[in-house]
Amino acid sequence: MTDTAAASSDATFLRDFHHVATIGATDNNGVDRQAATPEDAQTRDWMRTWAQDHGFEVRVDAIGNMFACVEFVPGAPYVLIGSHLDSQPLGGRFDGAYGVIAALFAALRIKEDIAEAGPTPAYNLAVVNWFNEEGGRFAPSIMGSSVYAGLFDLDQMLAVRDLEGTSVAEALAAIGYAGTDTPPEAISYAEIHIEQGRILEREAIDIGVVESSWYTQKLDIDVVGEQSHTGATAMADRHDALVSGAKVVLAVHDVTNEFEEGALVSSVGQHVVEPNSPIVVPRRVHMVADLRSSDPEIVKTAREILLGQIDDIARAHDITINVEDFDIREKRFFPEAGVELAEKAVANEGLTIRRLETMAGHDSVAMNARVPAVMMFVPSVDGVSHCEREFTTDDDMVRGVAVLTRVASALVHGELAGIGGELPAEPADGPAEVWVGRSVPAGVEAAS
Amino acid sequence: MTDTAAASSDATFLRDFHHVATIGATDNNGVDRQAATPEDAQTRDWMRTWAQDHGFEVRVDAIGNMFACVEFVPGAPYVLIGSHLDSQPLGGRFDGAYGVIAALFAALRIKEDIAEAGPTPAYNLAVVNWFNEEGGRFAPSIMGSSVYAGLFDLDQMLAVRDLEGTSVAEALAAIGYAGTDTPPEAISYAEIHIEQGRILEREAIDIGVVESSWYTQKLDIDVVGEQSHTGATAMADRHDALVSGAKVVLAVHDVTNEFEEGALVSSVGQHVVEPNSPIVVPRRVHMVADLRSSDPEIVKTAREILLGQIDDIARAHDITINVEDFDIREKRFFPEAGVELAEKAVANEGLTIRRLETMAGHDSVAMNARVPAVMMFVPSVDGVSHCEREFTTDDDMVRGVAVLTRVASALVHGELAGIGGELPAEPADGPAEVWVGRSVPAGVEAAS
Repeated sequence: MTDTAAASSDATFLRDFHHVATIGATDNNGVDRQAATPEDAQTRDWMRTWAQDHGFEVRVDAIGNMFACVEFVPGAPYVLIGSHLDSQPLGGRFDGAYGVIAALFAALRIKEDIAEAGPTPAYNLAVVNWFNEEGGRFAPSIMGSSVYAGLFDLDQMLAVRDLEGTSVAEALAAIGYAGTDTPPEAISYAEIHIEQGRILEREAIDIGVVESSWYTQKLDIDVVGEQSHTGATAMADRHDALVSGAKVVLAVHDVTNEFEEGALVSSVGQHVVEPNSPIVVPRRVHMVADLRSSDPEIVKTAREILLGQIDDIARAHDITINVEDFDIREKRFFPEAGVELAEKAVANEGLTIRRLETMAGHDSVAMNARVPAVMMFVPSVDGVSHCEREFTTDDDMVRGVAVLTRVASALVHGELAGIGGELPAEPADGPAEVWVGRSVPAGVEAAS
Repeated sequence: MTDTAAASSDATFLRDFHHVATIGATDNNGVDRQAATPEDAQTRDWMRTWAQDHGFEVRVDAIGNMFACVEFVPGAPYVLIGSHLDSQPLGGRFDGAYGVIAALFAALRIKEDIAEAGPTPAYNLAVVNWFNEEGGRFAPSIMGSSVYAGLFDLDQMLAVRDLEGTSVAEALAAIGYAGTDTPPEAISYAEIHIEQGRILEREAIDIGVVESSWYTQKLDIDVVGEQSHTGATAMADRHDALVSGAKVVLAVHDVTNEFEEGALVSSVGQHVVEPNSPIVVPRRVHMVADLRSSDPEIVKTAREILLGQIDDIARAHDITINVEDFDIREKRFFPEAGVELAEKAVANEGLTIRRLETMAGHDSVAMNARVPAVMMFVPSVDGVSHCEREFTTDDDMVRGVAVLTRVASALVHGELAGIGGELPAEPADGPAEVWVGRSVPAGVEAAS
């Protein structure tokens, strides 16, 4: 597999990876390929051509997920491996795209190995590019894999609109990826991704394997004041939504100080001011706050603290602030057998590995709700992600492809298949957990 | 003039005023007629038709100002009376439109009186609808009158772009109001407007006459951090432009507390977050702060305090904040003879009047830099403006038309003409003041 002439070689992988990074490239080495934009379509077209050229059958389902399928056992279910090709606005070129392209090469190597040497595996194999993992244009994020996994409703997601009023259905049709194919039925799932944190880099470890995902939730916060003239209106007569909104932004930030360092992360990423005119006191600020912790109780406590503080802000400024829970994602555990499978694969490659949690949401977290999933990380330089200076070295990427190939090969030959569908949630939380995927609340514009 | 059948009667004025309020009407009794939008075009078309039907000659100049002219003395300069028909987004139906429609009826009454009874006046008369007084779509505000008065450069203003990238020149051409007519030459100016404050209402006075305008300035504030993943990035590793931006918003608000109550008003009306995605820590916040005071030294001191605080915020968050001065408007005094003229007109109508300052910018402030100007107010219920619940009673509007008619008639017959062009500025400020009208700074998008 290190023969540079081979179609599945590391050199070819790197060439193709760096080629895809030129699609939607930005001035500072990032990419801008938001879901269902022309740039997203270009990467999809690239994947379709690549897959067809290498003997895969391409299917596109109704939410725009793309599958490059290879059938070893007629009628058997599929091992899915992949990630997402869409990006954040001015995002990095590794996030998601690395996982899809690594999966294409892993699948090609497995296909070649089986064709050359057998034995016939237990399951078929498909590489997947999940639609709209990022959620920058259409909320919620992790959309395509959540629909596939049955966590989100298809029709509800097709009706979600971006800030310009375009629906997911319209956007997919516009780029020619409103599919009608039946997606392959999954038996298990594996994904490799950049870490987006700095633990692997700090500890000089090659691969991370994810044991669990953080508990996350969003708050849709709508600050409603009254617009007035910036010059003519006395300060005391104003109901300035931006001043109250600024206090909410700081409350969301400062609530992390109530807990041990690193135990909670919080932010406001979306924040829209109306009417947004230089000489009008703002009437409305609509924002989305994001709270995440390994410990669900910390998020719940932080939420309670914030609701109290927001109430105080509203009262002090004689203004209305509506808060709605949004996009709650329970803490989930990946199967121990999958973690051990990754550890074995890494050992066989002569590499190092450690167990991790993921603070970020991933398609694998959605898939893990339905089939046993294995989630692995390669190191991120400086731990930065969702920005143009996101970076992972060629060597780290190549190591990840090798590990993913081993894991996917084991899955195709039957590993983890006995574990079945829904996985046990954290014991302390009682009965099986569900993701709560909500569409944008009534009366709130498509900004969330 | 109280004959309800007459074309210039109060009843006809009210009918026409309330008709114009239906153009671009919003759900809550406001209007949305931003500069050079289709709704602005509709009000312009209405004015053109009205003026032509009543025997006025309509001219449109290169910045889209509309003049409805009546010539009494061939070749003589014109008394201009008017205001603006454009509105803020979700603005009120009185701001500007009242002044233009009041001026149309005042001009019609003067035209009828002169036709019936003479004597031949000293000057001609034109009603003006100034382009883009509001500045919500295209900054700076008070654009058309400032170009007419020679305070802003025509070509620079035609090149200003809105947030969608459309230039003033393109927008005017699109609605058919990129004029080529030579505007009438002004000898004096009068305007009536709603107060947008609550002094007249509180004191139960019919008319306000403006002695001076407040000193105002804007600050273009660009907060530049780094975008990152809202989940995966540790709080300590972030350079969140919105958190720093929120502190700037509060600093701009709180700086008013450094001065006597009411001495300074400040606000941030425009505030744009990038990339504005729910799961990305913001990289940039671009905002416009607005500072106003009767005393220029207070604005200058507040600006100094803010620059220091903004510097501290930038340092504390390891982030860049660029601040540029923008749209500085010196305090100006209206001529005492004009104030006295308004007082005499009000007395002759049997009404009450008081002298005021204006905190808001107005076309009359720009015009007063070139010719003697008279600026009058009618009461605003609750003092609110730039919002849908802006309100002035029919009776107050009718009283204002009568007073404007008397003032304009006096101007047409030669009052104030001797005063000449540039007016003395506040003595303490030294030599003649100028307005500083700047286009959007280089490197900053069209948001300001």
